[in-house]
Amino acid sequence: MSALVTLTSDFGDESVYIAAMKGALLSVAPTARIVDLSHSIPPQDVIAVGLFLRDTLPYFPAGCIHVVVVDPGVGTARSILLIEWRGSFVLAPDNGCWTTLMQNGESVTVRKLNQPKYWRSTISPTFHGRDIFAPVAGHLCNGIAPEQLGTSTHQWSSLIVLSSKRIGSIIQGEVVRVDRFGNLITNIPAVDVNEFCVVRIANQVIGPIQRSYGESKPGQLIALISSNGYLEIAEVNGSAAARLQMKEQSFVEVVDTTS
Amino acid sequence: MSALVTLTSDFGDESVYIAAMKGALLSVAPTARIVDLSHSIPPQDVIAVGLFLRDTLPYFPAGCIHVVVVDPGVGTARSILLIEWRGSFVLAPDNGCWTTLMQNGESVTVRKLNQPKYWRSTISPTFHGRDIFAPVAGHLCNGIAPEQLGTSTHQWSSLIVLSSKRIGSIIQGEVVRVDRFGNLITNIPAVDVNEFCVVRIANQVIGPIQRSYGESKPGQLIALISSNGYLEIAEVNGSAAARLQMKEQSFVEVVDTTS
Amino acid sequence: MSALVTLTSDFGDESVYIAAMKGALLSVAPTARIVDLSHSIPPQDVIAVGLFLRDTLPYFPAGCIHVVVVDPGVGTARSILLIEWRGSFVLAPDNGCWTTLMQNGESVTVRKLNQPKYWRSTISPTFHGRDIFAPVAGHLCNGIAPEQLGTSTHQWSSLIVLSSKRIGSIIQGEVVRVDRFGNLITNIPAVDVNEFCVVRIANQVIGPIQRSYGESKPGQLIALISSNGYLEIAEVNGSAAARLQMKEQSFVEVVDTTS
Repeated sequence: MSALVTLTSDFGDESVYIAAMKGALLSVAPTARIVDLSHSIPPQDVIAVGLFLRDTLPYFPAGCIHVVVVDPGVGTARSILLIEWRGSFVLAPDNGCWTTLMQNGESVTVRKLNQPKYWRSTISPTFHGRDIFAPVAGHLCNGIAPEQLGTSTHQWSSLIVLSSKRIGSIIQGEVVRVDRFGNLITNIPAVDVNEFCVVRIANQVIGPIQRSYGESKPGQLIALISSNGYLEIAEVNGSAAARLQMKEQSFVEVVDTTS
Repeated sequence: MSALVTLTSDFGDESVYIAAMKGALLSVAPTARIVDLSHSIPPQDVIAVGLFLRDTLPYFPAGCIHVVVVDPGVGTARSILLIEWRGSFVLAPDNGCWTTLMQNGESVTVRKLNQPKYWRSTISPTFHGRDIFAPVAGHLCNGIAPEQLGTSTHQWSSLIVLSSKRIGSIIQGEVVRVDRFGNLITNIPAVDVNEFCVVRIANQVIGPIQRSYGESKPGQLIALISSNGYLEIAEVNGSAAARLQMKEQSFVEVVDTTS
Repeated sequence: MSALVTLTSDFGDESVYIAAMKGALLSVAPTARIVDLSHSIPPQDVIAVGLFLRDTLPYFPAGCIHVVVVDPGVGTARSILLIEWRGSFVLAPDNGCWTTLMQNGESVTVRKLNQPKYWRSTISPTFHGRDIFAPVAGHLCNGIAPEQLGTSTHQWSSLIVLSSKRIGSIIQGEVVRVDRFGNLITNIPAVDVNEFCVVRIANQVIGPIQRSYGESKPGQLIALISSNGYLEIAEVNGSAAARLQMKEQSFVEVVDTTS
């Protein structure tokens, strides 16, 4: 079976960059099976792609090659890392975006790419996705061992994702993603929320926590646990983001009414 | 040959949801061949996805698995249906979206999914796409028989798509889709239109019906039969939608000038 | 190994057109491996797709079938061409879009499609992508020889892409693409630029030419050679397009300060 290669970037669907990367990959590994994850990560937003990877890559089988190109540091001295994680490979710039994947201190093997013979012969200083990431992914498809592609390292950048914090009976957090439906996904984990909690956001008090959208009437604001395991604020059949005028980084807090 | 799995949703290309679904599918059926149809269906718009399926799925070969997740009722008691249609499978929520596929009373076999052993072990009440649709599609790829996945039913929701209506020599209908070029596609079927007809829309009279864009000059408003077999109003090399300020649900009528 | 078929169009990701094309292709060649390049080419913009093809197709391996449907002339007498180029096939309307691929007068074999037995049985005059391009691509996948699909021709439309021009020590050109990051890619080739040049755009003087984004501070305007080999103006970690209020066709010039 040919290898699965997933692609995640901030290039935008209209770009030449995605197509050029696919070509460079297939030139090395013509049987690679490409799976687009998203090319609409907000431009150069390392935190957004970190949360994206956290909420998507764990659902893939082992043996994948995940190529991640959100790379504001392209052309600087930042390294490109090849990470062995749960039986899959992740190729990502050393900006910390992939470190959201490490739950509970699980171990990974990390290498810095440093073998230009597996890269394109000419390297554009502004497009390593095409000239380094894609051919290296192709060589991984072809069975080249990771130790041939780079040198092991124990130093890398880590992503600082703002966690929610507890102050007495109050959990304070923020909106970290607004989806296409206008649902507000926060950084407050399910473990901090129970059926006696209410949510405060934008001068509204919402609660108690519901189980799904369908338990309430269209137009009602509800709070529930999102499919990624974090608190979500939604308007049933509507847009909480539009209704509350909230977006990423908006403040939200949870109050445990039993405290 | 590995099975073809098409994906249609309203998740938006920027979402984590599509990627998570692909992962959940490939975890069950690593050799599945994924074909994205669109993830830009208007949010929760059951009619739009119904028309989308009507205009696209008939072009696919038998043996496909078509996964459709436009699901405003997720988490309620609505069922998820597995439909056997022209030698392919369709997985869709029981909101009627797929019933646009049944032309002239053709027969289908419909089952309600009710075998959780083929689902993910934990089911988010807000994301059945990842936790039920995707793994069930994967099991279909792997050759699990439909009768192992659900129980046959003869009851399901049907989509009420507003038809055009005839009043004497006038056919009244509406715009049901605006494409990227600003072409206005209506619900008036070709059979109701002939070369002696003119179209009234937005206080304009357009006609007679043309065969293609290229027969008229750039900038001219024309009426023609769209590639889906329904009346279309277009501006040659321009946008009829912008020119006429028309959108979905705009009123349009056809007058047979020979009557 | 099944054939790789790439798809490039201006249909928009929300359209039924892409999905219908994929179905029509897979109906003829069920094992075809589809690779989406972009469906967000500006509507009917033959120059934009010409530049897109120039910057992407050379990265693909030989043996691909590249299907290009940006076709403002659909339904007119314009031909559909099958081009044999560097061991791959390109299917494109005869509007010149593909002629950007011919560097330095390289030779190609060009045929006009004229064998309807390899098309769908009914041809919509507004959607040759589904009814002609897709099935012909499918037959190519299946090994039908190009000479069975059309007749050789030596006449075709060529795309006139405005070149930059030299006036003494000044090179005058224009912006031909704005990418998602707001980078301004011009039509001034690298060979016309050296380290002693400065760039004039929007009453700003930018220079000298940098090697990559990372050499300058965030917020700084820089000029550099883009990954496609042409001059680019960028704002480090920002948008030059927004900063300078520039877009496609904006004037730009390079001055050689040593002259």
